[in-house]
Amino acid sequence: MLTNPRSDRVKAVRALSRRSVRSRTGQFRAEGPQAVREAVRFAPEHVRDLYVTPEAADRHGDVVAAAREAKLWVHEVTPDVLAAMCDAEHPQGLMAVCRWARLSLSDALGALPPDPLVCVLAHVRDPGNAGTVIRGADAAGADLVVVSDASVDVLGPKVVRSTVGSLWHLPIVTEVPIETILEGLRAVGVRLLAADGAGQTLLPDADLGGPHAWVLGNEAWGLEDQVRDACDDVIRVPIHGHAESLNLAMAATLCLYGSAEARRRRRRSG
Amino acid sequence: MLTNPRSDRVKAVRALSRRSVRSRTGQFRAEGPQAVREAVRFAPEHVRDLYVTPEAADRHGDVVAAAREAKLWVHEVTPDVLAAMCDAEHPQGLMAVCRWARLSLSDALGALPPDPLVCVLAHVRDPGNAGTVIRGADAAGADLVVVSDASVDVLGPKVVRSTVGSLWHLPIVTEVPIETILEGLRAVGVRLLAADGAGQTLLPDADLGGPHAWVLGNEAWGLEDQVRDACDDVIRVPIHGHAESLNLAMAATLCLYGSAEARRRRRRSG
Repeated sequence: MLTNPRSDRVKAVRALSRRSVRSRTGQFRAEGPQAVREAVRFAPEHVRDLYVTPEAADRHGDVVAAAREAKLWVHEVTPDVLAAMCDAEHPQGLMAVCRWARLSLSDALGALPPDPLVCVLAHVRDPGNAGTVIRGADAAGADLVVVSDASVDVLGPKVVRSTVGSLWHLPIVTEVPIETILEGLRAVGVRLLAADGAGQTLLPDADLGGPHAWVLGNEAWGLEDQVRDACDDVIRVPIHGHAESLNLAMAATLCLYGSAEARRRRRRSG
Repeated sequence: MLTNPRSDRVKAVRALSRRSVRSRTGQFRAEGPQAVREAVRFAPEHVRDLYVTPEAADRHGDVVAAAREAKLWVHEVTPDVLAAMCDAEHPQGLMAVCRWARLSLSDALGALPPDPLVCVLAHVRDPGNAGTVIRGADAAGADLVVVSDASVDVLGPKVVRSTVGSLWHLPIVTEVPIETILEGLRAVGVRLLAADGAGQTLLPDADLGGPHAWVLGNEAWGLEDQVRDACDDVIRVPIHGHAESLNLAMAATLCLYGSAEARRRRRRSG
């Protein structure tokens, strides 16, 4: 049982709150039972250490058993130690330190299935939005998420929490300049669809056939001109009432599900 | 200029953080420029007082000018006073105390247009989710939102912020028992569609013709059995990848937009 909230180990785990430390060590934290459960289930080889309070070990016995089964290091800690390690106000007694398996854009593009659906975060800065978009991409059956170097770090604790495990469910490429992302996708025949409130094409009228990627901009000011101009079409979600806009995660989910449904119809009829 | 953060006025405004005080006084706060702008624009007759710091008065001159034009009480306050009045960490210098115009369910149902789209929050507890659902309902062109007495108070500061003004864009009925809501809707010929992960009908296969209401449950455990059973159909959003679920606001937005698109097609062809 780890009991000292001021130990070097606690400080090292706590330091993963900083992007620079995550980048240098290649490690990050997954906080709370849902994120930890999905990490243990989908990527046990990337879980370095699991920390659990005695109370949580009882309540989430399935997660701890799965972790022991996978021969992971499971450490019992006091609630004080866990709180000192984490950002979350209520990590609910469970946290895992994970390794990030870096995936190169070219490897990811080479491994795309036929008729792929891709989601690109071009300039998403809000952690909750980024995590929710990744969760939405997962739910819509996207084959790849690519996150530009101008976007928020997806290994930050709040993004990881907001993905609710989706971080481990599909390939995610990070830290690539947006120009490289767009060129790479275009080179393998993926059409680029900008999701933008300034788009001329309404989502229900958009051509969602064939391989394509949704390119999502900043939550406050959308896509940069040169990114929008580099895309094959600029598409907006129709606003029927008086709302000024939808938030980024909602708009992205509608776009991704539009593609998912178009693909479902193609597969049924094909 | 109001300068004393310990004055009785400041305490009275601050007390609107409590549901009981909002309920007794019929007043609530709208915090931040977006919420205040929409209140002044769509419901100036319900804005009782507007509080603004000198800096925000410069930055958001349009809002202050519109408020003066509408003959509203505009009070200059110090940042300390505004912070003492508000819940938001960063109210960005602007806040309005508003009156809630209570709308009865029977009046709201009587005023429904032909072919209405309705959104029912049966047991939504999270303020951010509730606000985002109301924003989504607005964007999808819903004609009415009905919030059960078991749901979160939509006049709480966090819900108001999350609606980004949609609170003033469409009729909202609050504090009604869910049984009364469902009976009332059924009596005026509105079909009840439960949105629930346990549904047998997939959203793309659902019949979204004619007057209908989406009934949304709790973010953690969905709809209560008796509510689900009282609905005409139980519909789920398909999950294509490995995600366990979508969050409530995303699922609700997909459902509401499904209805909006079905209605758009009806109106085009009709």
